[in-house]
Amino acid sequence: RELTQDQSKLGPSGEERHTYSLVFELHFPVSPAAERLRYILGEDDDLPTPTLFTEMDTLQHDGDDMEWKESARWVKFEEKVEEGGERWSKPHVSTLTLHSLFELRTCIQTGSVLLDLEGYSLPEIVDDIVDRQVADGLIGPELREKVSFVLLRKHRHQHKKPMHRSLADMGKSNNCPANHAQSRSMNDISDTPSTDQLKNKFMKKIPRDAEASNVLIGEVDFLDKPFVAFVRLAQATTLGGLTEVPVPTRFLFVLLGPHGKGKSYNEIGRAIATLMVDDLFSDVAYKARDRDDLIAGIDEFLDEVIVLPPGEWDPKIRIEPPKKVPSADMRKSVLNLNELGQVNGAVGGAGGGEDEEMPAPHEFCGGLWLDIKRKVPWILSDFSQGFHIQSISAVLFIYLGCITNAITFGGLLGDATDNYQGVMESFLGTALAGTVFCLLGGQPLIILSSTGPILIFEKLLYEFCKSNTIDYMELRLWIGLHSCLQCLILVATDASYIIKYITRFTEEGFSSLISFIFISDAIKKMYYPINRGFKPDYVTSYKCECIAPDQGEPFSSSPSSFSSTPSPSSFSPFYSPSSFNCLDWSQLSKKECVKYGGALLGNTCKYVPDLALMSFILFFGTYSMTVSLKKFKTSRYFPTMCRSLIGEFSIIISILVFCGIDYLLGLETPKLHVPTEIKPTRPDRGWLVMPFGKNPWWVYVASAVPALLVTILIFMDQQISAVIVNRKENKLKKGCGYHLDLFWVGILMAVCSFLGLPWYVAATVISIAHIDSLKMESESSAPGEQPQFLGVREQRLTGILVFVLNGVSIFLAPVLQYIPMPVLYGVFLYMGVASLAGIQFWERIKLYLMPAKHQPDFSFLRHVPLRRVHLFTLVQIICLAVLWILKSTVAAIIFPVMILGLMVVRKMMDLIFSQHDLAWLDDILPEKDKKKEKGGKKKKDNKKTKTPLSPPVKILMDTIDLPKDPDPSVTPPTQPPVSDWE
Amino acid sequence: RELTQDQSKLGPSGEERHTYSLVFELHFPVSPAAERLRYILGEDDDLPTPTLFTEMDTLQHDGDDMEWKESARWVKFEEKVEEGGERWSKPHVSTLTLHSLFELRTCIQTGSVLLDLEGYSLPEIVDDIVDRQVADGLIGPELREKVSFVLLRKHRHQHKKPMHRSLADMGKSNNCPANHAQSRSMNDISDTPSTDQLKNKFMKKIPRDAEASNVLIGEVDFLDKPFVAFVRLAQATTLGGLTEVPVPTRFLFVLLGPHGKGKSYNEIGRAIATLMVDDLFSDVAYKARDRDDLIAGIDEFLDEVIVLPPGEWDPKIRIEPPKKVPSADMRKSVLNLNELGQVNGAVGGAGGGEDEEMPAPHEFCGGLWLDIKRKVPWILSDFSQGFHIQSISAVLFIYLGCITNAITFGGLLGDATDNYQGVMESFLGTALAGTVFCLLGGQPLIILSSTGPILIFEKLLYEFCKSNTIDYMELRLWIGLHSCLQCLILVATDASYIIKYITRFTEEGFSSLISFIFISDAIKKMYYPINRGFKPDYVTSYKCECIAPDQGEPFSSSPSSFSSTPSPSSFSPFYSPSSFNCLDWSQLSKKECVKYGGALLGNTCKYVPDLALMSFILFFGTYSMTVSLKKFKTSRYFPTMCRSLIGEFSIIISILVFCGIDYLLGLETPKLHVPTEIKPTRPDRGWLVMPFGKNPWWVYVASAVPALLVTILIFMDQQISAVIVNRKENKLKKGCGYHLDLFWVGILMAVCSFLGLPWYVAATVISIAHIDSLKMESESSAPGEQPQFLGVREQRLTGILVFVLNGVSIFLAPVLQYIPMPVLYGVFLYMGVASLAGIQFWERIKLYLMPAKHQPDFSFLRHVPLRRVHLFTLVQIICLAVLWILKSTVAAIIFPVMILGLMVVRKMMDLIFSQHDLAWLDDILPEKDKKKEKGGKKKKDNKKTKTPLSPPVKILMDTIDLPKDPDPSVTPPTQPPVSDWE
Repeated sequence: RELTQDQSKLGPSGEERHTYSLVFELHFPVSPAAERLRYILGEDDDLPTPTLFTEMDTLQHDGDDMEWKESARWVKFEEKVEEGGERWSKPHVSTLTLHSLFELRTCIQTGSVLLDLEGYSLPEIVDDIVDRQVADGLIGPELREKVSFVLLRKHRHQHKKPMHRSLADMGKSNNCPANHAQSRSMNDISDTPSTDQLKNKFMKKIPRDAEASNVLIGEVDFLDKPFVAFVRLAQATTLGGLTEVPVPTRFLFVLLGPHGKGKSYNEIGRAIATLMVDDLFSDVAYKARDRDDLIAGIDEFLDEVIVLPPGEWDPKIRIEPPKKVPSADMRKSVLNLNELGQVNGAVGGAGGGEDEEMPAPHEFCGGLWLDIKRKVPWILSDFSQGFHIQSISAVLFIYLGCITNAITFGGLLGDATDNYQGVMESFLGTALAGTVFCLLGGQPLIILSSTGPILIFEKLLYEFCKSNTIDYMELRLWIGLHSCLQCLILVATDASYIIKYITRFTEEGFSSLISFIFISDAIKKMYYPINRGFKPDYVTSYKCECIAPDQGEPFSSSPSSFSSTPSPSSFSPFYSPSSFNCLDWSQLSKKECVKYGGALLGNTCKYVPDLALMSFILFFGTYSMTVSLKKFKTSRYFPTMCRSLIGEFSIIISILVFCGIDYLLGLETPKLHVPTEIKPTRPDRGWLVMPFGKNPWWVYVASAVPALLVTILIFMDQQISAVIVNRKENKLKKGCGYHLDLFWVGILMAVCSFLGLPWYVAATVISIAHIDSLKMESESSAPGEQPQFLGVREQRLTGILVFVLNGVSIFLAPVLQYIPMPVLYGVFLYMGVASLAGIQFWERIKLYLMPAKHQPDFSFLRHVPLRRVHLFTLVQIICLAVLWILKSTVAAIIFPVMILGLMVVRKMMDLIFSQHDLAWLDDILPEKDKKKEKGGKKKKDNKKTKTPLSPPVKILMDTIDLPKDPDPSVTPPTQPPVSDWE
Repeated sequence: RELTQDQSKLGPSGEERHTYSLVFELHFPVSPAAERLRYILGEDDDLPTPTLFTEMDTLQHDGDDMEWKESARWVKFEEKVEEGGERWSKPHVSTLTLHSLFELRTCIQTGSVLLDLEGYSLPEIVDDIVDRQVADGLIGPELREKVSFVLLRKHRHQHKKPMHRSLADMGKSNNCPANHAQSRSMNDISDTPSTDQLKNKFMKKIPRDAEASNVLIGEVDFLDKPFVAFVRLAQATTLGGLTEVPVPTRFLFVLLGPHGKGKSYNEIGRAIATLMVDDLFSDVAYKARDRDDLIAGIDEFLDEVIVLPPGEWDPKIRIEPPKKVPSADMRKSVLNLNELGQVNGAVGGAGGGEDEEMPAPHEFCGGLWLDIKRKVPWILSDFSQGFHIQSISAVLFIYLGCITNAITFGGLLGDATDNYQGVMESFLGTALAGTVFCLLGGQPLIILSSTGPILIFEKLLYEFCKSNTIDYMELRLWIGLHSCLQCLILVATDASYIIKYITRFTEEGFSSLISFIFISDAIKKMYYPINRGFKPDYVTSYKCECIAPDQGEPFSSSPSSFSSTPSPSSFSPFYSPSSFNCLDWSQLSKKECVKYGGALLGNTCKYVPDLALMSFILFFGTYSMTVSLKKFKTSRYFPTMCRSLIGEFSIIISILVFCGIDYLLGLETPKLHVPTEIKPTRPDRGWLVMPFGKNPWWVYVASAVPALLVTILIFMDQQISAVIVNRKENKLKKGCGYHLDLFWVGILMAVCSFLGLPWYVAATVISIAHIDSLKMESESSAPGEQPQFLGVREQRLTGILVFVLNGVSIFLAPVLQYIPMPVLYGVFLYMGVASLAGIQFWERIKLYLMPAKHQPDFSFLRHVPLRRVHLFTLVQIICLAVLWILKSTVAAIIFPVMILGLMVVRKMMDLIFSQHDLAWLDDILPEKDKKKEKGGKKKKDNKKTKTPLSPPVKILMDTIDLPKDPDPSVTPPTQPPVSDWE
């Protein structure tokens, strides 16, 4: 390629060139090493080579006794046996010296290389190695016995007891170097894996198909120059106790040398071990035809190494494994120059690889039909994937969220509609709508719930009906029917295609707003009065007395006089108005006093001691304990299993703990009270609303107008929540179902209207919480490798269970009544805050408070000037502030229109911001670039903050009016700088 | 050396050797590169070379226009200009490719190297470079003008506005390559620094003596092979706007080349820039005699680089600068083989370098005399060093701690001694003893205070006196006098030498115990009753009434009847026993009721609503806010200055915030009440205690026996606290003063006994808090370099101020009464927890809860088997548990003896643990190894956890009974593996 040809011009020809041209053949268009590798790797690339597990054993001398002791191992990263601690170090990146790599190169060049050796036991193999060395004249024949003896010494692995413990063994194997046979019989060389090997728990960290490579490093006194052998066996064979795990050995590297250079040998051993676990070199090792192929492999490795300057890094620092390493495929493909184009294409695809967006609609109901087609194949897994312990936690968490929501909204709806719809209706409606939606909807991870705008709509509607004497329930039914019809029309016309215009800007604005509302509602609920003026010294003057309405003085009868009356106290002493004066007012409880029209007089009447602070403690305690327990998942304490359980069940644990504290203190905090009987909240309404008869005919028609408002509301709320749930970073695999979702929401509206139940739509915050509680991470991986986020348990089971539980909550009342409301509001607070976490808008707001040098390394900061980022954030903040003010007024009913407003603002930002900046901060709107899903979509970077893939070059072409940006970063981040080097 | 000779045997001689021997001359005992470097670096090593600031500018093309744009800079670590973000990246370790280093090597080999060029302006220098290139035949003379033109283009630095902003400039400098003179005049080349340069705040990050090296990298269209020049100026010269800061330029590296290889040139530029800031290479660059010296410098650099395997690390990850990098001196010394021995010695000394321990006593009062000699030179700085903003925070913090302590202990002492010593005495005593000690003591960072054991002693003594009718104050005076005498004898005999036996085991055990007591005391104080059975509904039945003692019913007079009486309510309605029944009992306040013997009847009498929970909130809130604000210091938000202020004043801020919250809620939380008048708490005692007259003569003699107990108590408490304060990791520079301290404590005992004030001794927890609040960190350092802990502001000012403030607190009463006690107990909790932080014992306890793989990388874990560590910790825990139980019983009075017990246990552990293990986990006791301070002393590792320097080899010699440990780590950790490589 061009670059390489250019490079040849850099170093001017001259006598100096040979100084390193033999190592790095930079001065030829294609280096011989690369040529070789391309040849051998290209041969049968379809057959993947097994993963290698490498174990390095060093020879230990104990007096005259010797044994091989495991000193390090590699699955992907290095783990070292700590010298005195008898323990494994943490997995870390192997830091090598350039020396050791060059020395290794010499070793391979000069030592014996035995490829595809047929050998089924260690003694056999050792004999072959020694024979070869003797044949090559590398050692004298007189050393044959000695070398064999050393190589067949026992191997002690880290999990076994140290050598001096097993004194019995030591007594037996009294060394006798000449007696070859005896030493061999003393050895633990056998063909079947030992129990120690089989019991080793480390096995589960190694892939199933793995093979072993063993590195043996030792100092002996009988050699005067190093003895080096590299062996590849024709068949991977279990060589007795050679390896700590029962993995068959494929490669053997032996380095024996004279005394005094142990550290240097050790470094060479680490170098070959590191090479063996390198994806590319291990391929080379498997496929090498001769010594020179191996050398070429080392050269390629050297070509790619990363160099840290000695003055800026301390080699003794163990480097933690990175979150992600570049794949070896990239390096391999670089070798195949002619395939580079294709590889680059694949890179571009990697970002949008799982891109399964809604296709543009083509026919009537096309979207709905596609949604159904997309969902049908998953029917079985939609249930089978739900069987996991995580689901239990998710169900309990979301159930508590839903039930709190149902009760809160139920109460508010009851107030707003004179109990036409109350807590009972809210319960049943939630259960019904939720179950149906989770069972049949397109995106079963979405949780349906009553939402604020609907509540406000119902309130205004009821007031309108009352003042115009229109029957509320009937009008509501008609609005519901119209709205359902309109939804179905939207479905049929594939109107959900509009979500293409819902970019990150709109989406994050909306979800932030909803989160803020959630948080502020939770906090507002926490207000209780505190008796601030209380002076303990005047405790004698504090009281709350019940005063009879006629201001008459209470009878000063003795306390016992009343309790002796036969009536139970619950039935109260109120016999008849005439007996009014017989009443001992001072003995009445607060409720009774109010009931009989008495007045409460005193300075303690409106206060409940400790209530406010207890509620605060419960509220804030639940929140912070949940947060702490979530964090505990990544702490150092306790085994992983235990920690992940605590992390999963953090919310449940917190709720239980604070319910317990509340129970122990026994204060009268407000509790969760669920209805215990199924009957409409208002006795004069039934379970079915009749469509005709109570209102004039024109109302049936006119109701289409308010229905339109409801439809917009439902549509926007539902679709934005769905967009948020379907965010790329959730890695959903079963595709979206916007049309199908809307279909069911519409149908459920009609059904709920008939039954006189509230209307339901996707609840953003609870849906996000649902997804968060179902996230999966990869489990077993090589030590040091970070668990990868795999996706979400996409299934219908948790959702269905949540809503079924909601339905049967009526029978759970005796248990639920122990849960204080402040604890549940604490859960709400947690949900609100958690759904804010990790959204870019929030990260950008934080940037305002950070000096530039402390700002995290977001990719958009690398590409967009800070003041543009700040401006973008400011626009978002202003939009949110306006929305917040509007939603606090009566204008809240046009909430959905306001969301449309957000989209308009976003559209206008095209005028202020360049497409380049917007591509990094947001998405590109469809008109500008139809391929927005390809280029502008986001993927998570290492810090779990969303960073956009670099926009496609096409955008840059659009923006020649911008400052010409000589930005090398336009190459997609996933493409390594490597490609400039072939 | 031997190793190198051995290495030559590793690579067998043959034709392969030359493949890299020209780069790495490993096969000769001393490589020519090392030989060269040793020669040039050895010349005048005493003259240190200036620090280099390196700036890399790349050539930007804007149409036909060109300018140099700063793209990266190095002080020690690399900072890069982010491509689109117009911002500096975080400082990071430069990760280079091996390629770029080799290419750079070729560049230096083939390009022009101009050393000690006389040039005072950029045009002059450019002319010289071009002339040389032409003379060497590297470029044709026809390119002379073009190259000069390019090299004299304007330099735009990162802090300036981007090029397209200054349209005016662009219009002017319409390019005209041939017109050399014009372009030169258009350039911003001047001899005096521009205002932009002078205004640059970055200047303060660069050392004063720094010189600049400028790297210029560009692609041009008129060259067909690279143009490379390396220039060292004879005099460092400010070359106009070449550098972003007004630092004179010493080095220039120019690389121009044909188009299409920008990325490769860039990497070469980064490589030379990284080399220029390398301490060793920059020395080489300053002293190089010719091209080959530079090449040798590069080879040495390559020799030392750290290599990361490509499969285990992503080169795009920016590596954060490490906490500490190995010094270049080590690398330099490695070059000088004959000096190696001396260097190793210096390394050994580095660990114990500041080792200024107590010398063994030689003569009467020798220790005291040495202490005084040690303290006298610091007299001035003891005051001058106190003037710093940090001192204000420290004074306020410690003052509040002391005053709370004084009031708490004063109250308890008053109870225990029938007010013979009360709050007033505690106040005055604290002020007096503290001021004297801080003014004259040996270790003015120690804070004196009353302590628990003394309190218990006084209590027992008073009870004894009462039951035997001995005068308490007089007996106490005699005990004090005897104790003073005994202390002085201990001083004179240099008994403080015993502290050599106080190892980490004893010290950490003691301080943990004291911290636990602190924490548990703070929590115990938080108990207030809560009205748990309160039912809001029965609020009407809750009251607290005052019942007359004769059980008579109160007069049912109207509320106004009593208030109309002429007597003021404070003087109460209690006229005479005869008027008993005239009293309106129901109108009495709680205190009055109790005063007149009434009984309080009712279910709310003992409760103060909200008090318990409010106290809890204040207590826990103060604690957690302090912890959070302390952590805030390392957060990303707000500028460093602001954060460090918040960090320093975290405790004061928390106290103020929670005082404010308390004030706003207006609840009757217990407040800090200080006495407002100076008079003895008990009216019948004066300010002076007379030694004779009240007790029989034999009491004066016999009091020597209890005095002995007090002496042991004082001695142990004082000396252990002093050992903790003098811990190595505090980096105290003014030396210890154990004898002088004890001298003053003894004298103060006598004085306090005469004045009838409590006795004072060093308070461990408050002293640690004092030190923590005075810690210094290095301020300005190269970007990315970690601030280093420099030591503690050792001065007498803060201590004196604290105690003077204590003395004048009587006048501060109106302010102090706003401080609720729970807030102060929160501060106590913080002190207790903070003094636990970072002690190894605590870290080892945590290890119990961690699975081995998650345990932090403590060095003792690398060297001592985990089960031994656990056993050691277990012994400590058992000791503490026993101590805790004992101190909760009456045996608390023998507390000091128990500490001696700890030392005995430690001595016995010599039998269970090997000296090797103990050297890592603890210190070696003096008998075993007189050089304990040399080898066994600890120093902080990166994680601020104490890790011992590896024990001297001598210890290993002692322990041949141990499993033979082929431990390479026995070489001190500060010695790099480098030394094995020459």
